[in-house]
Amino acid sequence: MMNLALYLDAGIHQGGWRHPDAVASGGTNWPLYRTVAQRAEAAKLDMIFVADKLAIDDIYGGDLSKTVHSRQVGWAEPLTLLAALAAVTDRIGLGGTVSSSYSVPYSTARMLANIDHISGGRAAWNVVTSLSDTEARNFGREKHYSHAERYARAEEYIALMKALWDSFEEDAIIIDKENAQFASPESFHYIDHHSDAFDVRGPLNVPRPPQGHPVLIQAGVSEAFTELAAKQAEVLFVVQPTRERAQQFYATLKEKAQTAGRQPDQLRILPGMVPVVGETRRAAEELDRYLKSLITTESGLSFVSASMNIDLSQYPADGPMPDLRDHITGSKCRFQYVIAQAIEEGLTLGEMARRYAESLSFPSPVGTPDDIAAIMIDWYQSKACDGFVILPTYLNSAGDLFLEEVVPRLQQAGVFRKAYPDGTLRDTLGLEKPLNQFSV
Amino acid sequence: MMNLALYLDAGIHQGGWRHPDAVASGGTNWPLYRTVAQRAEAAKLDMIFVADKLAIDDIYGGDLSKTVHSRQVGWAEPLTLLAALAAVTDRIGLGGTVSSSYSVPYSTARMLANIDHISGGRAAWNVVTSLSDTEARNFGREKHYSHAERYARAEEYIALMKALWDSFEEDAIIIDKENAQFASPESFHYIDHHSDAFDVRGPLNVPRPPQGHPVLIQAGVSEAFTELAAKQAEVLFVVQPTRERAQQFYATLKEKAQTAGRQPDQLRILPGMVPVVGETRRAAEELDRYLKSLITTESGLSFVSASMNIDLSQYPADGPMPDLRDHITGSKCRFQYVIAQAIEEGLTLGEMARRYAESLSFPSPVGTPDDIAAIMIDWYQSKACDGFVILPTYLNSAGDLFLEEVVPRLQQAGVFRKAYPDGTLRDTLGLEKPLNQFSV
Repeated sequence: MMNLALYLDAGIHQGGWRHPDAVASGGTNWPLYRTVAQRAEAAKLDMIFVADKLAIDDIYGGDLSKTVHSRQVGWAEPLTLLAALAAVTDRIGLGGTVSSSYSVPYSTARMLANIDHISGGRAAWNVVTSLSDTEARNFGREKHYSHAERYARAEEYIALMKALWDSFEEDAIIIDKENAQFASPESFHYIDHHSDAFDVRGPLNVPRPPQGHPVLIQAGVSEAFTELAAKQAEVLFVVQPTRERAQQFYATLKEKAQTAGRQPDQLRILPGMVPVVGETRRAAEELDRYLKSLITTESGLSFVSASMNIDLSQYPADGPMPDLRDHITGSKCRFQYVIAQAIEEGLTLGEMARRYAESLSFPSPVGTPDDIAAIMIDWYQSKACDGFVILPTYLNSAGDLFLEEVVPRLQQAGVFRKAYPDGTLRDTLGLEKPLNQFSV
Repeated sequence: MMNLALYLDAGIHQGGWRHPDAVASGGTNWPLYRTVAQRAEAAKLDMIFVADKLAIDDIYGGDLSKTVHSRQVGWAEPLTLLAALAAVTDRIGLGGTVSSSYSVPYSTARMLANIDHISGGRAAWNVVTSLSDTEARNFGREKHYSHAERYARAEEYIALMKALWDSFEEDAIIIDKENAQFASPESFHYIDHHSDAFDVRGPLNVPRPPQGHPVLIQAGVSEAFTELAAKQAEVLFVVQPTRERAQQFYATLKEKAQTAGRQPDQLRILPGMVPVVGETRRAAEELDRYLKSLITTESGLSFVSASMNIDLSQYPADGPMPDLRDHITGSKCRFQYVIAQAIEEGLTLGEMARRYAESLSFPSPVGTPDDIAAIMIDWYQSKACDGFVILPTYLNSAGDLFLEEVVPRLQQAGVFRKAYPDGTLRDTLGLEKPLNQFSV
């Protein structure tokens, strides 16, 4: 069966917030988030997902003015939002972004464990390494870590989090009131993790999560990244502009996972997709054109500058796309393709930025619910993916054509569940529960 | 009107978890927390409160074995728990502990702001400086900060959090779809806070909380602490063993607040209280004796060792109470009174520890609902306090005599509200909303 995750916030399509039906609030509209999550649960989606960034972008022009003028800013903090959603949903998975560069392992392990306890085993975490110097400056650093440094740090961070979750074993608590014994000392483990990056003694003071470890999501496509992901990621969010590239990536990653000694189905590969759905093909095309017309060059350049960690205000927006492939210190690999394509097509810098601001280079099919469902089924059946992450162009409190019209067609075609299985998010995704490293 | 806060977890009375009716779970019983919070809201309490510690104590004996054997360990992480409770309550305040020694200001400011947004303005934070080396070792330090260092750090931390909350002004977001303007650049402020302790550029990426700043709780009685609290605390949790001491403290603090240029009613002083309530006086006394009999010497010594940050296993439990007043590096001031009293009464070390483990030296009145209500009204009317923090001896899923029987008597006596006022937690507590430092 296909796996489906839904981005809970918009902000990908830089024109979305200007649509008359769009509800944008700077992250403070809790009733809207609750409604969308419950709507996604009614559609039996695997997971809702909350992305994150640790600053308001100000790379473009060296100041935040252009960003806050032209783009949605302000958004909900993921872990507290997921905890709140855990209390008002029953079965849907709750995924959120955590930065291994700028969060504290002991505290973050506690929070994710607590969300897993509150939700009865529905937490998932997307480990990112963060992107820009702007983020670094909110956390005591002038410059962001280098690419190599932050991936080394991420690998160590993940291992440390798992050790912390294992350090307070599931059966540790006995509560023998008669004999005044609360828990078994042998079920607690000092982890004594000491390195240049992290110094954590443990054990955690929250019992092991119901899922053992919350589901590990990773997102990326770089060589170094996929090597790591093949070894340990359980859900992989990827950018694949075409079905053919997606098939190739899928085959490679599944093979790498097998080489790493894993069952290939224990790595679920979900490309992002930005569907533009209309009741008719004409309505969809009109919506697509309209949404594109709402993207300003300024919003595109602000968005791309932050993702590249390069101030693009130094180049003329109507001049040719400069070849910056070797200079990107942000989201490096994603832009190799985007820049190559822009140069090949002779786009100006501004045109490249506006195009990127439509979908972040995710595929963005335009059509009726039947069209969209057919494309998704085709990708799925031709082994281009195990499912999708759906990124809405905007959030609408009135309803969502994707959830209400596309998902039922996937169910009718027999590629998507009609009911949740019993158990935790791991059961929904078909993932095994990890063994405890201290009890095996 | 009196203000009432309820500790959401037990763990103060070290015998409580052994009571047959007690529900103890190591912090994983979300349905119980939800029930207790909703029960407290039905009783119109100002606030539920989640305490915290950043490690499993292991000062006693230099290892966690004796602690996990004899005491409740494992507890919910406060911020995620409060966020979840925000989603299932409507009016009650949501207070939780945050360590200024071991949390990241930018992330914590975001989380508290988000809880305030989700709850419609009901968040409160209790800034603590943490206690023990055990906690330090989970956060990259071998030793805990010195007393002076951590208070200086706390003061700076609080100012920094307020600046962050002010840095993204409330009216910053415009959402002018027509003219493609999302927000006003002039309503965002780099705070550029740079010191040895913290280096944060800002602005926050979450809009200013509905309360302006979540309500600032502080807890403590030391000289240095009260000087600071008089200047900025909005709710003060204190340990006052007798009404007379409480009256003296109350008068002093209100005067200090006034000297600091504040309205005295903008500082709400709430002593802790551990009521032991019974349907009859005899039942209450029996319950009290029974609960005391459930406290083991080991649990008391583990508890006190951690709070003092001194390993008491080096002294004989049945020997005289050693005078450690000058050696405490943990909860320093609280123990000045406790140790003096123990020496004066000729208690052994073990007796002192067991007594401390009954109530942490909070007053612990034993009686019927009428008795408890009368004591509370007496303290309140004789200006010993503005209300109380109630610490249950244990959590019971079936009900709670304090909420169901004592609170209605306070309402009948006209000293406690029968309905919540409109607005935020600040309106419930009678606190003003702070001005934004960047807009005044």
